[in-house]
Amino acid sequence: MEKGILLYEGKAKQIFQTENENELWISYKDDATAFNGEKKETLLGKARLNNEITSLIFAYLHENGVESHFVKRISETEQLVQKVEIIPLEVVVRNVVAGSMAKRLGIEEGTALTEPIVEFYYKDDALGDPLVTEDHIAILNVASNADLAVLREKAKDVNKHLINLFDNLNVRLIDFKLEFGRTSEGDILLADEISPDTCRLWDKETNQRFDKDLFRRNLGSLQEGYQEILSRLGGASCTK
Amino acid sequence: MEKGILLYEGKAKQIFQTENENELWISYKDDATAFNGEKKETLLGKARLNNEITSLIFAYLHENGVESHFVKRISETEQLVQKVEIIPLEVVVRNVVAGSMAKRLGIEEGTALTEPIVEFYYKDDALGDPLVTEDHIAILNVASNADLAVLREKAKDVNKHLINLFDNLNVRLIDFKLEFGRTSEGDILLADEISPDTCRLWDKETNQRFDKDLFRRNLGSLQEGYQEILSRLGGASCTK
Ligand SMILES: Nc1ncnc2c1ncn2[C@@H]1O[C@H](COP(=O)(O)OP(=O)(O)OP(=O)(O)O)[C@@H](O)[C@H]1O
Ligand SMILES: Nc1ncnc2c1ncn2[C@@H]1O[C@H](COP(=O)(O)OP(=O)(O)OP(=O)(O)O)[C@@H](O)[C@H]1O
Ligand SMILES: [Mg+2]
Ligand SMILES: [Mg+2]
Repeated sequence: MEKGILLYEGKAKQIFQTENENELWISYKDDATAFNGEKKETLLGKARLNNEITSLIFAYLHENGVESHFVKRISETEQLVQKVEIIPLEVVVRNVVAGSMAKRLGIEEGTALTEPIVEFYYKDDALGDPLVTEDHIAILNVASNADLAVLREKAKDVNKHLINLFDNLNVRLIDFKLEFGRTSEGDILLADEISPDTCRLWDKETNQRFDKDLFRRNLGSLQEGYQEILSRLGGASCTK
Repeated sequence: MEKGILLYEGKAKQIFQTENENELWISYKDDATAFNGEKKETLLGKARLNNEITSLIFAYLHENGVESHFVKRISETEQLVQKVEIIPLEVVVRNVVAGSMAKRLGIEEGTALTEPIVEFYYKDDALGDPLVTEDHIAILNVASNADLAVLREKAKDVNKHLINLFDNLNVRLIDFKLEFGRTSEGDILLADEISPDTCRLWDKETNQRFDKDLFRRNLGSLQEGYQEILSRLGGASCTK
């Protein structure tokens, strides 16, 4: 397997071609950004931590019957994935009120929801990734109502498995963001990453944050928090 | 009928008690506000114009089988309405993309929708009346899913009738905001106002604005625009 040309450089990852037109080479970056890129820092070790954690989580989901774009981990900071056409929606699942939802609705961060909810945000940096309704999504022509039903179902299924995974590690899964894409066969497949960059993860006993809020809110070392997640996931062997 | 104590003073209206505990006395104000109260001006004649227009529109809806809180017009600037417990949602119907929707989705203002859409905003000035999903509304505990279905249906029905009304006056109904309340019997009733403060109304030929965007965007005399709507509604007799 060889790395081809750079197709896309995002804020957290670089995406390279491979000799297989159905696969992409993802290289994680040591960059942290927040507030739509306004806050930015290089944090050594973040690439490795997110690559390892994402790989372990996608492998765990696969073992539990949830398919994703993940093919294999190539190196400390790189992985091979199935190429998809990303649906420009951030699919957010929330178990506990936090972040933008706490601000939007004036509900205290940490308030548990009786049922998980799914929200859709339109992936558009220039617009600030706005919250959108199903009608907006239809107007934007990015997904059909049937697609949205699939996204909701898949997102809730991922949630169920991740709650289990983290609960056993004494971690509360507060919320997370997923991205999905369409394969060349037209199927909707879980893609992108699942890491402390894209999940809120709180220690069950202390409410200590192990996620990107460490960086967003200057709550302490991002790398120490992410390493704690990796260690609890049993990923010590991946850290060599 | 006598005016009782002032119960509530909003940005556009004062609400007074009456001797009938099921009725309220609404007095329209000559104040215009925009951007959550940031922009503010006194515009003489606005109270009369909105009171007359709202009265004519609620009367028209009644003739077409759509009930509302409207009881009767008392004076140039006052009307009697049925008291309800307002559901804290702004129910917005859109036929054409404009205003916050154009900004949110990056779609050009004036783009016609193939189907009208209904949006819900949480009425909370401190939060800036945020867009909310049906899940958010359930969490906020302001309306059940069954209530939301009723609100959607009633809002679309009002839309159908208002499109007809304005179309005959050579006016395009771009979008509008409704408020609903619960009567003492527990029924959901259309309330508040329907006026150029709460509708976007464009001349069908020239796209000239006859609504609060005149004030928001400094496009010309608000009173002249509102008077044009009142005149086209045939409300000359109401202006004495
Ligand atoms: N399997 C995949 N096939 C194609 N693209 C993918 C796949 N998985 C993720 N991507 C896309 O690759 C990019 C990952 O880069 P990164 O996370 O750094 O982007 P970003 O800075 O978050 O910005 P944005 O997501 O807005 O492009 C994203 O655009 C993501 O949607
Ligand atoms: N039939 C009714 N019974 C009770 N309250 C009503 C009725 N119709 C309208 N209202 C309420 O009366 C107030 C009208 O005042 P106004 O339009 O000036 O308020 P506002 O400045 O828009 O602020 P807000 O709507 O956020 O209170 C609103 O709160 C509205 O919801
Ligand atoms: Mg990303
Ligand atoms: Mg009002």
